[in-house]
Amino acid sequence: MKVEKISELTTNRMSVYLRCLNELIAEGAKTVSSDGLAKRFHLNSAQIRKDLAYFGEFGVRGVGYYVDDLREHLTKILGLNKQHRVAIIGAGRLGTALTDYYGFSKTNFTVAALFDADEEKIGKKVGKVKIFDIKDFAEVAKNDKIDVAVIAVPAQFAQSVLEQVTKAGIKAVMNFAPTPLRIEGDVKLKTIDLTISLESLSYFLAQPNNLNGKGAKAVLNGQRKEE
Amino acid sequence: MKVEKISELTTNRMSVYLRCLNELIAEGAKTVSSDGLAKRFHLNSAQIRKDLAYFGEFGVRGVGYYVDDLREHLTKILGLNKQHRVAIIGAGRLGTALTDYYGFSKTNFTVAALFDADEEKIGKKVGKVKIFDIKDFAEVAKNDKIDVAVIAVPAQFAQSVLEQVTKAGIKAVMNFAPTPLRIEGDVKLKTIDLTISLESLSYFLAQPNNLNGKGAKAVLNGQRKEE
Repeated sequence: MKVEKISELTTNRMSVYLRCLNELIAEGAKTVSSDGLAKRFHLNSAQIRKDLAYFGEFGVRGVGYYVDDLREHLTKILGLNKQHRVAIIGAGRLGTALTDYYGFSKTNFTVAALFDADEEKIGKKVGKVKIFDIKDFAEVAKNDKIDVAVIAVPAQFAQSVLEQVTKAGIKAVMNFAPTPLRIEGDVKLKTIDLTISLESLSYFLAQPNNLNGKGAKAVLNGQRKEE
Repeated sequence: MKVEKISELTTNRMSVYLRCLNELIAEGAKTVSSDGLAKRFHLNSAQIRKDLAYFGEFGVRGVGYYVDDLREHLTKILGLNKQHRVAIIGAGRLGTALTDYYGFSKTNFTVAALFDADEEKIGKKVGKVKIFDIKDFAEVAKNDKIDVAVIAVPAQFAQSVLEQVTKAGIKAVMNFAPTPLRIEGDVKLKTIDLTISLESLSYFLAQPNNLNGKGAKAVLNGQRKEE
């Protein structure tokens, strides 16, 4: 496997391919061609071949891909064969909603701890997950082998929470606060900024041409190219 | 203003610029140069000039941008001067967390109604927002002037919900179900797929080189370029 750096858009597509393979496997498929995969899931077959070629030769001439093998490869490439333990900082509505987000259980992430500064919340549980004092983050993270932090606090606290968790050695952070955050050092920060997504919907609705669009488009979400 | 089609990445950056301008205005700034904006918020000044040039000439030689004027322009471009009314489908934890998401109040979106299929929930309220029967979507959406739908239902129901809301005339949809959805016609679908974001964190953590990164990087989230 080549170890050259690949873009996040590529890893995002790998996630989509993996999801498609799971569906095919559930239906009993044994093999699939890049064209078949593209047709079925409204993807681009040349893009599929290019993306997968980054990581080696998975296709077999005249057969396509063995779906089980390809799934195993993609799982390893995405690091989904290793478990990660997640801390959610902020035990408000969003943080507690995320605690039992069905997406976590579908991946290799387990929510191991919640953190908050509110004494009313500290010590309580959301499902099976205990709420700890944010002051104790470094200690709890070490004991609980936390390696991913999810920031679900109000915007004005997000930067200091980010600094606290990275100082405690966390390398991967998902941020829900709609504010620009600065990272230092080799930390991966994914921001889920819903206001940016809302504003892109707003932009779309503001265009006069969106009301008289003709011709049906079938688009797999996340797969629409830069226009 | 040119009306040529611009990419979603551009509108996303416009959202970021708008946020930066709000911060500058709150601090009392009157003007800012593209270099100043770039330096302060860790953006790319050439990119700023290019993005803004799509929509006209806003800069003044020797001055830069008048921040109030530029904010007003960006607000119009993004359609944030018009109000939108949002329906959230799915009154589970995620749907109710979204109902009072602080991001909505910061934009021009108002959550006007919740929908669910669970008779236990129908008729109740989350804050001031009533939960309606999903069967009545078309009627309620019309009466309540809903123009945006947020899908917060389990994955297996997402496609049929999407079809129901677009059939009722909704043109802008935000989807939280981690599943590929197909859209027909001129509908804007934004999917917030947390599992894809999680898997990109997983990929990062699986790379052997993420543990010995040297040199500090300061990156405004969402602004990191394709590597």
